[in-house]
Amino acid sequence: MDSLKDKSCIVGIGETEYSKNSGRSEMRLALEAIKTACNDAGINPKELDGIVRFSVDSNQVDEIARNLGLENLRFFPEVFFGGGAGCGTVQMAAMAVALGKAKYVACFRALNERSGFRYGQMAMAMPMMGHFQYSIPFGLMAPGSMVAVMAVRHMHLYGTKTTDFGEVAVAFRKHANKNPRAMMHSKTLTIEEHANARMIAYPLRLFDYCQESDGACAVIVTSPDRAKHLKQKPVYIMAAEQGTGSWMEMMTSYQRKDITDLEEYTRMAPHLWKEAGIGPKDIDCAQIYDAFTPLVIMQLESYGFCKRGEGGPFVRNGALEIGGKLPTNTSGGCLSEAYIHGMNQIIEGVRQLRGTSFVQVPKCKHVLVTSGSGIPTSALILRSA
Amino acid sequence: MDSLKDKSCIVGIGETEYSKNSGRSEMRLALEAIKTACNDAGINPKELDGIVRFSVDSNQVDEIARNLGLENLRFFPEVFFGGGAGCGTVQMAAMAVALGKAKYVACFRALNERSGFRYGQMAMAMPMMGHFQYSIPFGLMAPGSMVAVMAVRHMHLYGTKTTDFGEVAVAFRKHANKNPRAMMHSKTLTIEEHANARMIAYPLRLFDYCQESDGACAVIVTSPDRAKHLKQKPVYIMAAEQGTGSWMEMMTSYQRKDITDLEEYTRMAPHLWKEAGIGPKDIDCAQIYDAFTPLVIMQLESYGFCKRGEGGPFVRNGALEIGGKLPTNTSGGCLSEAYIHGMNQIIEGVRQLRGTSFVQVPKCKHVLVTSGSGIPTSALILRSA
Repeated sequence: MDSLKDKSCIVGIGETEYSKNSGRSEMRLALEAIKTACNDAGINPKELDGIVRFSVDSNQVDEIARNLGLENLRFFPEVFFGGGAGCGTVQMAAMAVALGKAKYVACFRALNERSGFRYGQMAMAMPMMGHFQYSIPFGLMAPGSMVAVMAVRHMHLYGTKTTDFGEVAVAFRKHANKNPRAMMHSKTLTIEEHANARMIAYPLRLFDYCQESDGACAVIVTSPDRAKHLKQKPVYIMAAEQGTGSWMEMMTSYQRKDITDLEEYTRMAPHLWKEAGIGPKDIDCAQIYDAFTPLVIMQLESYGFCKRGEGGPFVRNGALEIGGKLPTNTSGGCLSEAYIHGMNQIIEGVRQLRGTSFVQVPKCKHVLVTSGSGIPTSALILRSA
Repeated sequence: MDSLKDKSCIVGIGETEYSKNSGRSEMRLALEAIKTACNDAGINPKELDGIVRFSVDSNQVDEIARNLGLENLRFFPEVFFGGGAGCGTVQMAAMAVALGKAKYVACFRALNERSGFRYGQMAMAMPMMGHFQYSIPFGLMAPGSMVAVMAVRHMHLYGTKTTDFGEVAVAFRKHANKNPRAMMHSKTLTIEEHANARMIAYPLRLFDYCQESDGACAVIVTSPDRAKHLKQKPVYIMAAEQGTGSWMEMMTSYQRKDITDLEEYTRMAPHLWKEAGIGPKDIDCAQIYDAFTPLVIMQLESYGFCKRGEGGPFVRNGALEIGGKLPTNTSGGCLSEAYIHGMNQIIEGVRQLRGTSFVQVPKCKHVLVTSGSGIPTSALILRSA
C-alpha cells in the first residue's frame, strides 16, 4: 500500500510552440500550456485544485491561479534544482492524487530561456549561489564547462569517444527531423558535422549542447477513476522518485569518489525499478534528459541499460534511434526539439504511450523519463493503459 | 484509503535559542535545529532521507544534505509563500512517509529575520513581486499595513474593538511569561499598555505586531511503525492541508467579496476537519499563526470556533489563556515567543501533546496548528498517541 504505483495517471498534455523568441511573457506561455493541457484532458481549467511548479519558474502559483480563475487550489508544493525538477513535479501531483489531496493537478514549466535569461550566461548569477564561487575562478563559467569535466573523465577511464557523443546528437536530430514541432525540424546533422563543429568547452562541441528555447509545457494528473470519464486514454504513473547522491552540489559534485557516476540517478534507480516492478529491459522507449550528450551516455549506465563505462559502445550503430535497441528522445529531446527543462520529454513520453508520436515506437508499453543530471533530480516510469 | 490520517507522526523537535542576534549563519542555525530534532527523536541525522524546506529559506537542501553527510536523500520538495509554508512542509513529509517515499523527513525553517533582512522593511523587495506594485504607491509598504486594511474593515462591519486585539496580545504574553525560551519571557503586558503603545499602522499598535527573531526550528516525521522504536511518544498527524481562496494575492487579496474572510482558511477548514474526523469543539489547544493580533480573531471565525464577526467577543475574558475556552499559543506564539515563521508553533503543538509544555493544557489530546494568513497557507491537526 505504501507505494505510488498506478494510483494516478497523466490525462492531459499541453505545449506552446518552441522558438527562439516567443514574443510574449512567461506568464502567458504558462497559461497557454495549462489551458491546452486541460482542453486535451477534457476538463475545465477551473476544475484544477492542484498546481506544482518548478521553484525556478518566474510564475507564482497564486498568480497562475488568479489568472485561471481558480478559487479552491488545495495543493501547491514546488520542486527545486532547475532541470532536475520536471519528473518531480509529476511525482508530487501523483502523491496528491493518491492521498486525496487534489483531484486534478497541473504541472508546468514556462520559460523564455533564449529571448530572456540564457543559462549559458550563468556566470553572472552564480556567485550568489555559495559553492559556485569555488569553481568559477577555474573557468567553469557555465553548465557546459561543468559537464565537460565529467565527460573528459569518462573518456579517460573508459575510452569513450567524442564520436559516441556524436551518435547521441545525430540519433535525436533524426527524430527531430520527423517532428514538425522541433526547433531543429528542418536541419539535418551528420557525425562529420558534429565532429567538425566549433569547440565550446573541450571535449564538448556545438552539437553536444541542447537548444536554448522559449516555450511552455504542462501535464494534468488525476486518478484512474476520474480518468475513465475524460477524453484521452490515460497514461499510468508506475513509479516516481527524486534522487541525490554523496557530496551533492548543483552541477559541480566533484568531491565524489567517481565523477563519472551520476549518483543522483544511480542511487535512485533501484527505488524506481522496485516501485514499478519492471527493469531496464522492459523499457520500450526512453526520454533521457539531454542538456549535453555525455550525460545521456552516463545515464544509460546509471539506470542499468548497460554496465559502468559501457555507455559509449552502447549508443553506437543507431541504438538510440527508432528501430534501435533503445529508442530514445523520439521528439528530438532537449538537444533537438526544445529545452523546456525536460517537461517536453514527459509530454513525448505520454504521446508514445498514447501511440500519437511523430516518431512512434510500435507497441510502446513502458517509458522511462528522466530529469536533469548533476543536480538533485527525479524520474518517472510511465505505462500505457 | 486516500487520506493522510494517522499514517505518519512527528517524533522529533529541535530549536535553537530565539534572539535578536544569533551571531551565526542561517545555515548553522538550520543544522543545529535539525540535529537537535534528530537527537530528540533518537535517530542519527544520517538516517534522514527526506528534507522539506520553505522555498524562501536561504539554505538549499543540497547544502544541508552535504553538511549533514547525507548520501541518499530521496525526497525534497519545497513549500512557498513565506509563513504560509510551515504546516505545508509537514504535510509533504507526511505524504512521503505515507507513500513509502522516505523513512525520516526533516522539515525546518532557519532565519536571521532580526539581525539580517527584516520583513518590516519589505518595501525594498516588493516591487520585484508583480502585484505589490499596485499597493505600494498607496502606502502599503510592509505586512502590518496590509493587514491593517482587513482589521479596520472587521472593526467597521462587526464592531470588533482594538481592546479585542489587546486581549489576544495579553493572553499570549502571559504564556510567554511562563516560557523561559520566549523572547518576551521577562516582559509583562497589560491591556492598558497595549492600548497606549505607539501606533504603527492604524488600527495596529506596537503590541499587535509579532516579534522579529533570529533562530531555527525543525521537526522529524516518520511512520507509526518506526516511531515505536524511537525515544519519544509519537504525535500523530491526523490531517494536513494547504489552502488558498478567490483572488489570491500574497498579503493583498483585496479584490475578494469580503476582505474580512480569510478564504485561504475558510475554504481549507472543511477538508481539514473531514480528514481528521473531528471538529473545532474537539480541539484542546490551538497554535494559531499570529503575525498580527487581528489575524487570530479572523482565524477563529474561519476555522469555525465562532461565527463570522464574533471573533472579537470570542477572545474576551481570557478565552485564549490557559484555563480559558480555547488555550491558544501556549508558548507565546509569534507575538511573544519568537517569529520563526510559525515553525515554533508546530513544535509547541507537539510539546502539548507530549505533555511537556511550560504552559501545559491538562489532558491535551487534539491540537490545531495554522500557518500564515493572507497568503496561500496550510494547517495541521495533531493528536497524542
